[in-house]
Amino acid sequence: MRVDHPELRDFASRCLTAVGVSDEDAATVVDVLVSADLRGVDSHGVARLRRYVDGVRAGTIDPRAAAVVMTETPATATLDAGNGLGQPASCAAVDLAMAKAAETGLGMVTVRRSNHFGIAGYYALRAARRGLFAIVGTNASPQVAPTYGARPMFGTNPLAVAFPTDAERPFVFDAATSIVPRGKLERLHRQGDDMAPGWAIDPNGESTTDLPSVVSGLKERTGYALLPLGGEGDSHGGHKGYGLATVVELLCGPLAGARWGRHVYGPEGAGLGHFFLCGQVAAVTTEEEFRAEANRMFDELRASPKARGRDRILIAGEREHEIEQERLATGIPLRPAVVADLARVGAECGVAPLTATTGVTRAGRDRNADTADGGRR
Amino acid sequence: MRVDHPELRDFASRCLTAVGVSDEDAATVVDVLVSADLRGVDSHGVARLRRYVDGVRAGTIDPRAAAVVMTETPATATLDAGNGLGQPASCAAVDLAMAKAAETGLGMVTVRRSNHFGIAGYYALRAARRGLFAIVGTNASPQVAPTYGARPMFGTNPLAVAFPTDAERPFVFDAATSIVPRGKLERLHRQGDDMAPGWAIDPNGESTTDLPSVVSGLKERTGYALLPLGGEGDSHGGHKGYGLATVVELLCGPLAGARWGRHVYGPEGAGLGHFFLCGQVAAVTTEEEFRAEANRMFDELRASPKARGRDRILIAGEREHEIEQERLATGIPLRPAVVADLARVGAECGVAPLTATTGVTRAGRDRNADTADGGRR
Repeated sequence: MRVDHPELRDFASRCLTAVGVSDEDAATVVDVLVSADLRGVDSHGVARLRRYVDGVRAGTIDPRAAAVVMTETPATATLDAGNGLGQPASCAAVDLAMAKAAETGLGMVTVRRSNHFGIAGYYALRAARRGLFAIVGTNASPQVAPTYGARPMFGTNPLAVAFPTDAERPFVFDAATSIVPRGKLERLHRQGDDMAPGWAIDPNGESTTDLPSVVSGLKERTGYALLPLGGEGDSHGGHKGYGLATVVELLCGPLAGARWGRHVYGPEGAGLGHFFLCGQVAAVTTEEEFRAEANRMFDELRASPKARGRDRILIAGEREHEIEQERLATGIPLRPAVVADLARVGAECGVAPLTATTGVTRAGRDRNADTADGGRR
Repeated sequence: MRVDHPELRDFASRCLTAVGVSDEDAATVVDVLVSADLRGVDSHGVARLRRYVDGVRAGTIDPRAAAVVMTETPATATLDAGNGLGQPASCAAVDLAMAKAAETGLGMVTVRRSNHFGIAGYYALRAARRGLFAIVGTNASPQVAPTYGARPMFGTNPLAVAFPTDAERPFVFDAATSIVPRGKLERLHRQGDDMAPGWAIDPNGESTTDLPSVVSGLKERTGYALLPLGGEGDSHGGHKGYGLATVVELLCGPLAGARWGRHVYGPEGAGLGHFFLCGQVAAVTTEEEFRAEANRMFDELRASPKARGRDRILIAGEREHEIEQERLATGIPLRPAVVADLARVGAECGVAPLTATTGVTRAGRDRNADTADGGRR
């Protein structure tokens, strides 16, 4: 089923406000989730709504928490999210980092006692669209083994970096520090596809392609683990991926004063930590010059010779932007299992289920009309 | 041949001052080079002296250049290194970033018109030893292909991140964003060893294990290229390594106002850019708490189950620290080809060649004596 994004926003907001989230916070959470759906990161979209609603009901997420500034210097701050939803605290954090960068050139805000914040790239893009570059990270539930290890000790610890290279379509790198995220394995498993060797290890620390065991082992924490970027051992740089995951964990755990490693997602809540750093491009060069040079660089990359069988070299964030353009026009595809789960969440919250709406909402109609006009002109 | 580090410092300093470098700058350059030799990063040690001396003689490196501050905000600055040696400009930059962090909590300094700065980890460690965390990057001569590409478009673009987790032995991640550096391929070639598949590509963009062709092709720029961390294509995250290399290039090229991509190392000099970011741990948490939590995390990693056949999980920087302890005691091993090349550099500069000095210098004697005493007590 395909749903236009305004309908998806409306549905998800109603579910969140039904469990006690304020209208404003619900709109923030939904904007982050739907942004993931629009950009093709379906694992971090409204499919997550169930966990948020359940977390609030179980008391591990406080729907009315407001992030509080704990410590502050001219360029830095620490926030305590009070076990609230990750998105409102993270928007407050990146906005504060931007405000500090406007004053001093740079701003860094860490967040503790938080929950899942969605896609890291959302916050980096938020800054890049205002002319700043940004580095964003979060820790996460343990799934990734250290090099030479045999147990999940770190989350997929994503790192996002964005630059204001283009007003519409800024450069945005947003990647787990593992080779693949768990969501990708779950998708392949659902589709009946195979997994590649070198993505995950069994409880002996050896590479495995037994997809059903990996998927259930990661979920039930029976010792299966994802491998860090660079893979098994150190022959192809696995120690570098492990090192990057450690850097993100140090920034978001010990530095932010949050939980870390295997202690994330304990019985009293996630206790996640996040990290947001923003910098003014105009502090060190002019925005125009930066943009011109960066785009010249991207053009040289695009025009450079391709590997045999390839016809395009991509810039980070480009593919996601294209998916977003397409989904804004034609709606967000939702799998039947997600539609069914959302219907159950809706029923529990007293919200009517979604119906297919592609192209019938105002946004969809206007866009279709524009395209049609454009074709005639 | 093994040489104690004070002899190596003395020799290299004399060569640099002979071509017009000041005593102070020579000491800085040599400290960075010898630090690489001590930590086992031989490719970035005094073996590089030839290139520095030749660069000064060819006029592409200005031996008397002093870095100048171009723009400044409370937390940021841009330096112009004036085509001078990379190390004095980089030490000035990281020291300025630390001073800014002491005032505002954070400091970032970019450097343009610079040359090779040695190991990125040196500057990150310099900050971590003073209680700050640091992120350091540089661009470099083009050797790495973008994902789906078939030509070197970026340097190995190393990224170093250090945290003050321990006064003696801070956490330090220092890695090229390619799978392997060119130096590793050259070493394997010298030793008559093979290369692994998946490290480099031929001019068609296809993975190759033809080591002699890769080594000469990278040197002579005939289209061979190293692969980014994550490898060929995107099945194992090659697009993530490529994305990270792009992030480093954006920070050190367009943001720093330096050359980028294929334009680094032109006829008028390297035109390299560097990036230094420092943050006060004490601005967001207490140093004691940060150190305690980080070390608890490292202890959990070390104690976690090992992959079959492995008996140790390492923390970034640990192995290098151990090599440094060993080489401080027993001297720095230099290959015959490096010894011969250094002798030629020395002869050109009027400096007597190195002789093996292991354990005969005062530093070596004292350390040996300490160890012997310790054994008796």
